[in-house]
Amino acid sequence: MKTPVLAVNYKAYPTAFGEKGLAIALAAERVADNYRGSLRVILAVPATEIARIAEVLDTVSVYAQHVDPVEPGAHTGYLPVEAAKEAGARGTLLNHSEHQVKLSHIDTVVRRAAALGLETLVCADTPTAAAAAAALSPTMVAVEPPELIGTGIPVSRAKPEIVTDTVKLVHMVNPDIPILTGAGITSGEDASAAIRLGTVGVLVASAVMKAKDPEAKLNELAEALVKAWEKERP
Amino acid sequence: MKTPVLAVNYKAYPTAFGEKGLAIALAAERVADNYRGSLRVILAVPATEIARIAEVLDTVSVYAQHVDPVEPGAHTGYLPVEAAKEAGARGTLLNHSEHQVKLSHIDTVVRRAAALGLETLVCADTPTAAAAAAALSPTMVAVEPPELIGTGIPVSRAKPEIVTDTVKLVHMVNPDIPILTGAGITSGEDASAAIRLGTVGVLVASAVMKAKDPEAKLNELAEALVKAWEKERP
Amino acid sequence: MKTPVLAVNYKAYPTAFGEKGLAIALAAERVADNYRGSLRVILAVPATEIARIAEVLDTVSVYAQHVDPVEPGAHTGYLPVEAAKEAGARGTLLNHSEHQVKLSHIDTVVRRAAALGLETLVCADTPTAAAAAAALSPTMVAVEPPELIGTGIPVSRAKPEIVTDTVKLVHMVNPDIPILTGAGITSGEDASAAIRLGTVGVLVASAVMKAKDPEAKLNELAEALVKAWEKERP
Amino acid sequence: MKTPVLAVNYKAYPTAFGEKGLAIALAAERVADNYRGSLRVILAVPATEIARIAEVLDTVSVYAQHVDPVEPGAHTGYLPVEAAKEAGARGTLLNHSEHQVKLSHIDTVVRRAAALGLETLVCADTPTAAAAAAALSPTMVAVEPPELIGTGIPVSRAKPEIVTDTVKLVHMVNPDIPILTGAGITSGEDASAAIRLGTVGVLVASAVMKAKDPEAKLNELAEALVKAWEKERP
Repeated sequence: MKTPVLAVNYKAYPTAFGEKGLAIALAAERVADNYRGSLRVILAVPATEIARIAEVLDTVSVYAQHVDPVEPGAHTGYLPVEAAKEAGARGTLLNHSEHQVKLSHIDTVVRRAAALGLETLVCADTPTAAAAAAALSPTMVAVEPPELIGTGIPVSRAKPEIVTDTVKLVHMVNPDIPILTGAGITSGEDASAAIRLGTVGVLVASAVMKAKDPEAKLNELAEALVKAWEKERP
Repeated sequence: MKTPVLAVNYKAYPTAFGEKGLAIALAAERVADNYRGSLRVILAVPATEIARIAEVLDTVSVYAQHVDPVEPGAHTGYLPVEAAKEAGARGTLLNHSEHQVKLSHIDTVVRRAAALGLETLVCADTPTAAAAAAALSPTMVAVEPPELIGTGIPVSRAKPEIVTDTVKLVHMVNPDIPILTGAGITSGEDASAAIRLGTVGVLVASAVMKAKDPEAKLNELAEALVKAWEKERP
Repeated sequence: MKTPVLAVNYKAYPTAFGEKGLAIALAAERVADNYRGSLRVILAVPATEIARIAEVLDTVSVYAQHVDPVEPGAHTGYLPVEAAKEAGARGTLLNHSEHQVKLSHIDTVVRRAAALGLETLVCADTPTAAAAAAALSPTMVAVEPPELIGTGIPVSRAKPEIVTDTVKLVHMVNPDIPILTGAGITSGEDASAAIRLGTVGVLVASAVMKAKDPEAKLNELAEALVKAWEKERP
Repeated sequence: MKTPVLAVNYKAYPTAFGEKGLAIALAAERVADNYRGSLRVILAVPATEIARIAEVLDTVSVYAQHVDPVEPGAHTGYLPVEAAKEAGARGTLLNHSEHQVKLSHIDTVVRRAAALGLETLVCADTPTAAAAAAALSPTMVAVEPPELIGTGIPVSRAKPEIVTDTVKLVHMVNPDIPILTGAGITSGEDASAAIRLGTVGVLVASAVMKAKDPEAKLNELAEALVKAWEKERP
């Protein structure tokens, strides 16, 4: 990772769909353009919104929130990696604590995505699970203690040892896997802490999706990430 | 039902996505326009394709292939009914034998979809399961013995008693629920048999999605349904 | 049903296992013996305890808490109906709100259990789901609004219309299916209400499993059921 | 590991239950007694059989085939680690390819089992999944390519690189985790190959459970394991 990462999980918030989802995407594009070259912005959007959002974005990467471990064929209501790619996704979240999947599901999707040129951001709810995920060689892992998700209490403050343990265990398995900090990330301060604790960025959701001014929130997080990155990884 | 129903399940066939999926949708629209007023055509498409396909169709109804029993909110990679509606779907398949769900999942989604003005087509793999589904009052049910799906051996020929038992059991529970025949439907003859056995139409997949000429196949099925309907339900 | 039914779900409470689970079973046997001929007592115990408990009981029926829709064969960690039968169970709970299963799972298990001479008690969380379950012809259904389970607030007081709607909808589908009332049942008064509202008994868990004196609680429930039954179904 | 390991997965074969399951257990005990001190024998039996089998065995260890990531409490039809322990199990299989579970399920059960003094044998279907499992520090891992299970074609002959890749990847993550070879193991020769390829033993099922003479088959496998162990790990 040459730059920090700001990943936004749209989840299925009311603001994730239609015009509202598009407006947040366009705001994210403006922020990403402001920090072009020094920040990577990722939006993980609902499957139904990938195509509409991907076609208006350029700097920002669109991810799916989940894909299934199937090949194209007779599968009803399951999305192969190809479905996300065809719609314009550059990668996919996987194993979010709200949508945990089988170990073999992660193993299969990481391998299929890599073969198709798509990225994978695998979430884990403990440092050991993050290390296990890292053994599958995804593009990135994110650690998110589920008890803090949506609370506004950042893991970096409530349980910083979860982040530092994750960094330690993941890097013992695979020192090249970038790690994101998730759960309770609300402010620029939380974003700075994520960099300071040894991860490359944050995975946020409600802080942006439920913000009165999502663009201001994105700017706050982006600025903090870029500043902390310059300081910690000169 | 005033007209027979031709429902096409795109599944995740390679032809379901992007330009190919759009071409089949446009072909279906032409067929539906030819039989406007005497046939209803439904396309159940991958979640990632709903918006792109819905916006070019008028006579044909677009369905999701699956939705989840959640309300909008903090759900990663799950699609509430609202997601399908926002993308332009008029309804959703549910409980296809390739994607069977919990009884309470069907119960919840049927109720939420009705409240939002969306239709539900609930699949069942046995006559008793179809009767159970009917007790939940979906818009339609479809019976599909899984061992015949994709075989080209129509249920109406291999096991007609599954269709007639379904009609009998479903109508004991709720005489107003229209029933579709699925599994192995390949030809106009199969479509006629579906009407003759007391159902209102067919749910097909590979016959159309893997056809050399999907439009010709759609026309064959449509013509047979309309003719059988005129004969059996004058 | 000639007699009311007192069904106790052991769940996985600490008191469900080993000597403690056995002691509650022996207490239930004494209560059942006291009311022999005028009450049926069922204990749904953990899979690991079925054999040890079944072998010391005579009047009381032992049920599994769940079985899987598989035939004997190459299935690791899944229990076919035969496993429960071999261990001494007379039937099984299914689809408890803490362990909801697919519609086809219920359909398959009800059919397999009937073929093997075992009973099925299918739980449902809404009146419509109970009606759907009834369409599969299990031995009994139980209605349990999940928001009341474990609260000590009986459904018969908090939401009596859920019980009466269930009775109405289930009997429209199949007038011969006995119905149990579950969720929040704590006292003899709750048990009486269950009979008064048109069901044949109660499905209880914490009221017995967490009682200081389980035998006294079982006696209280048994007496109330038998008295209400004599009054309501003379 | 000071000795090789012979693990037998009873699955839900008809021979797994009741008198037949007990007879195989007693045969295994005789074999284990013959090789006491130079071989460890493990039987993973159905949940309903753990107590009856555990109480007649001494040298052989009884395992569950699966447990759930829950604590004792209000869980219907799920088995906490405590349930297996109370019934007499010394450990549990987990994530068998016939019963794959979520990454966090493995993470939780491995941790809970260790806290309660129980062992965990985590199965994986690929070398990378085995490495991921190893990152969670179970007692042992087993690699079983699902396409060979039950075929009688041993992985050690059909795809020896799966075994050697597993040994390599697992030991990069954690050099102390013993590995078993599974899938298609039928003969003493297959058992020898498992040791030769760097694993500590075999996980077998149909070879024993469907054998005309299970004790003879157990003896054949045991002898081969002990001889290969003496040769390869002097």
